[in-house]
Parts: sequence; structure tokens; C-alpha cells
Amino acid sequence: MSHAVGFADIESAALRLEGVVFRTPVASSPEIDGLAGREVLMKCENLQHVGAFKFRGASNAVELLGKGAEKGICTHSSGNHAQAVALAAKRRGVPAYIVMPNTAPKIKVQGVVSHEAEITFCEPTLEARITTTEAVLERTGAAFIHPFDNPHVIAGQGTAAFELLQEVGKLDAVMAPIGGGGLLSGTSIATRKLAPNAMIFGAEPSGADDAARSLAAGELIPQTSPDTICDGLLTSLGELTWPILRDHLEGIITVSDDEVLRAMKLLYNHLGMVVEPSGATCLAAVLKPEFNEREGIDRIGIILSGGNVDPEGLPF
Amino acid sequence: MSHAVGFADIESAALRLEGVVFRTPVASSPEIDGLAGREVLMKCENLQHVGAFKFRGASNAVELLGKGAEKGICTHSSGNHAQAVALAAKRRGVPAYIVMPNTAPKIKVQGVVSHEAEITFCEPTLEARITTTEAVLERTGAAFIHPFDNPHVIAGQGTAAFELLQEVGKLDAVMAPIGGGGLLSGTSIATRKLAPNAMIFGAEPSGADDAARSLAAGELIPQTSPDTICDGLLTSLGELTWPILRDHLEGIITVSDDEVLRAMKLLYNHLGMVVEPSGATCLAAVLKPEFNEREGIDRIGIILSGGNVDPEGLPF
Repeated sequence: MSHAVGFADIESAALRLEGVVFRTPVASSPEIDGLAGREVLMKCENLQHVGAFKFRGASNAVELLGKGAEKGICTHSSGNHAQAVALAAKRRGVPAYIVMPNTAPKIKVQGVVSHEAEITFCEPTLEARITTTEAVLERTGAAFIHPFDNPHVIAGQGTAAFELLQEVGKLDAVMAPIGGGGLLSGTSIATRKLAPNAMIFGAEPSGADDAARSLAAGELIPQTSPDTICDGLLTSLGELTWPILRDHLEGIITVSDDEVLRAMKLLYNHLGMVVEPSGATCLAAVLKPEFNEREGIDRIGIILSGGNVDPEGLPF
Repeated sequence: MSHAVGFADIESAALRLEGVVFRTPVASSPEIDGLAGREVLMKCENLQHVGAFKFRGASNAVELLGKGAEKGICTHSSGNHAQAVALAAKRRGVPAYIVMPNTAPKIKVQGVVSHEAEITFCEPTLEARITTTEAVLERTGAAFIHPFDNPHVIAGQGTAAFELLQEVGKLDAVMAPIGGGGLLSGTSIATRKLAPNAMIFGAEPSGADDAARSLAAGELIPQTSPDTICDGLLTSLGELTWPILRDHLEGIITVSDDEVLRAMKLLYNHLGMVVEPSGATCLAAVLKPEFNEREGIDRIGIILSGGNVDPEGLPF
């Protein structure tokens, strides 16, 4: 089996991103361990620059564009990838052109604005997103960086698990959220190399469970009408991410919005951190009774993938 | 000049606390650097266990009590030291008896409860605090750990700056908040040894500015009726902390509650972290025009001392 990204790509991304991305801490809480029935080590990408792991993939991709970045960078994103591309382009000294749905959380829009990118809003549909992006690309000549179906983006996202596994020693399992699958693809490849026996799980909102259905069916099933508070996990898997996930995952744990809200509250109360709904899915999954019953997992590493929540959207 | 705590005490505390306290990350933000006009490196003790640096001092003191801890530990505190002692005692396997003012933030009371300590509430006056604590000590035979005027507590608190200075290299200045002065005393001693030329500053709410007045007068002036949202910084300096601060500080920057609220919002918006009012005083101080005008400070390290805010008290 041959995938779009190998471990060497992640290793070289980790070197390339040294001093660019923030080496986020790994947090733990005795209370959360008690509730989960096992040790839970949380990689805090909510504390990453722009408040999400997305800055890893975007920075890696912008760096690797070389001269191809000179006319600027364009992407479409509901938020965190948008902020990430905006900041990566600014660091590189080239313009960023971002297509965002008009439903994107304010805090993410403000983040993009603060990094001086040009925003074009569109209706929150796949079609509007594509046609709007095509128009922007034609007008500007910018290079497009897909939010997840891009090997350099996937390799960059894999550096979060790379750091986690380097830092904490033996893990019996690793889990990351699934939207388009970029983070979990990178996580899978890093984990399979650095912890060959660790089980790899995805966490997915039950209101956008295309990856769980794809895994069950053995073929890529697109997401049609997602319904969840996890605004970062609404998209379908991609052509590059699907085969990686299919070949690595032990399973996908789906979580309800109520379970996500409970996980957000626990993270606030016990760790003083605001984690966005998408970012709290893994903790929600780890706290489910059916996950608790799984044997052979004494220590699990999970990724808190982002922390951008509109203050008025806080569930506490 | 001889002080209650020397650098060797902090060094041995750092060894003792390895694996006990969380080695918190040092965060930075290009936006905040821009506003401050210099590089600002923030030691995130808001992410420490119990959500504040206090766990360092409490753990060091409980460890060093040896057999003296067997009948339990007692303290009085409006919140973070209470939670810290409760968790340190629980880890040690001895009971904790906490005297708290009935005005303490709910989130801090809940923290103490979750660590299974016995709470005795009292009126929010110095007198009630003392008589209630004496009664608890008599009833239980527990060992008392003062929130700041205890050499083992001061040495423990100094490990935050010890880690910061180890990690970030050269700093031109270091700043910590002042309540009773335990954190800033430990910070001063660690800094004078590890960065002999760095200026040492305190940040203090203007509504509880006893330390600034003491420094100006050259003698300890007690705090009488504090009026500030910084609920962790209401107390007077102590007999051990005052001489340490007097002999080390370059100056104290006082900040208004509005300046603190602005700093809290910036930390939420740019770093996704909820920092409590007391914990945001240093950033508020660094952003003041009069501090900005000081020369010779290209890089400053500050301590975000805690993150426990009642959700309904968030200023955003």
C-alpha cells in the first residue's frame, strides 16, 4: 500500500517547523484520568499559534511552495485553516486570499482579519465555496492550499503527534478528531512509526459521521447535511486522507453534541482551558462507557485540536 | 543581607517537584509583542495543576513537612493556595483542613471540594480568618502552611521563574504579580542568580497597592481595605517576603481593574487562554505606556499566575 505521505515527510516537516510552530504542552488531570479510567495525555493544540493545529500544515505547505507562493496563497475554510494560511502567508511576506462561509465563527473571522488577509465570504455550501474559490484564484493567480487533501498539509499536521510521542513515552492508543482527515492522517503515520503497537482511533461528531460510515462500508461516503456544534468537522474525507485512515484506524468513536459540551466543561473546570467543540471530541469519546470498556489501553494520547470559540458560545 | 530563602532552596525544590508539578509552557503572541513594543514571554501557570502556581509552593512545603504532616495540613486562603494544599495533601495521603472566606470564587471552592478537603468558611476579615484557623488547628492537630510567609512555599514558587529562565535564554526583565509576595520573592531569588543583570518588577492592582506604598516608604505598610477584581492579590506582604522584595525590586507597576480586564481579553483572543484577574496583572503592566517607555528591555518574561475564574465572571 502506498500513501500520499510517509513518515520521512513528517520528520522533515518537524525540522522545518522548529521555531515556527509552538511546541505545545501535553496536559493531564487526575480528575479526567479518574473519569476515563485510564491515563489521558492531552496535546494542547488549542494553544498553538492561531489557536489550532492547522498552523502546522499551513506553514509546512507555504514553506514548500517556494517561488510558487509569490502571487499569494488562497484557500477556503470555515475558520482555523483560514487563520493558519493567513498567518503563514504573512510570515512569508505574501498576500493571503481566504474564502469563508458567511456562517464562520466571529472569532475565526477576526483572526483572519488580524493577519491582514483578504476575505471573500460565500454561502455555506460546497458549490458556493468551489465557485467562489475558483473566481478568486483566477483573479489573483495565487497558489491554492487545500485544507486537508494536500500531502504537505498532512505531513505538517502529523508533527503534533510526532511531538506528543517523542515527549510522553509509551502509549497504548492515540486519538485525533476527524473532519477532512488531515490531522488524523498525519497522526496515523507518525504513530505507526513511533509507536508501532499503539491503536489509532478517530473521534467524530455523530451529526457528521461520514468517516465512521465510510470505514464501516469500506468506501468513501461523502458528508451531505452535517448537523453538529463541531464547526471544524463538517467536511467529507478526501482522496488522500481516506486511504490513510482506512489502512490505519482501529475504530472511530462517534460523540453527541451533549457529550462534547460536557468535555468542554471538564476541560475548563479542571485545566482552565477553553477548547472548541471540534477540539473536545476526543475527550468526549474517551469518556464514553463503551470506550472505557476497551481493554489493553492504560495510557492514551489525544489531541485537543483547537480552542477558538466565540465567547458568547461558551457552554458555561 | 540574609533572606529566608536562597537559590539552593529553589534548586532543590525544582528537583523535588519534578514529575509532581506540571512544567508549564512559555507562550508568546506576535500581536501582544506588537502592543507591548517588545518581546513578551509568558510562563503559563494558569495551566499548572489546580490552575495556579500555588501548587508549587504547597507541594514543596507538604513534602518537607515529613512526619509533621501526619495529622493533616491546614491553611487559610481565598482560593488558589487552598486548592493547592488540598491536592498536595491528597497526593501525600493526609487530610486537608481549609479555612476560606465566604466570598471566595465558586470555582476555587469547587476545586477544594473536588480534592476532598474539609472546608470551614469564615467572614472575609483578617480577624475571622485567624480565629477560625486557630480553632481548626486546635481541633485537628494539623500542621499549618502559610500561603506565602513560609520559606518552603517561597522556594516552591521560585521554581516557576527557574523553569522560565532555563527555557528562554537571556531576559532583560522579569515580572510577577504581588499579593503576599511569595511568588515574586521566589521569582526574585531565582532571577538574581540565573539572570544577574535582569531587572525585576512586580505588578500590583492599584486597589491593593500596599507593596508599591511599602517600597516607596521603605517599610512594610499593611493592606487595609483592598478594592480590586484581583481576588488573589488582596493580602499584605509578610515578614519573610517584604525584605526579599525590598532588596531585589527595580519597581512596582500598579494597574487598574480596567487595564486588567483588557489584558484578560487579549489573552483570550490571542492565546485562547482564560487567565484570572490576578494572573493578568503583569500583562496589564507591560502594556502601560509608562512601562513601554522604559529603555533597555527588549525581552521580558512575565508570569501568568493563575486561571481560575468563575465562568459568569468572564469579561467577554
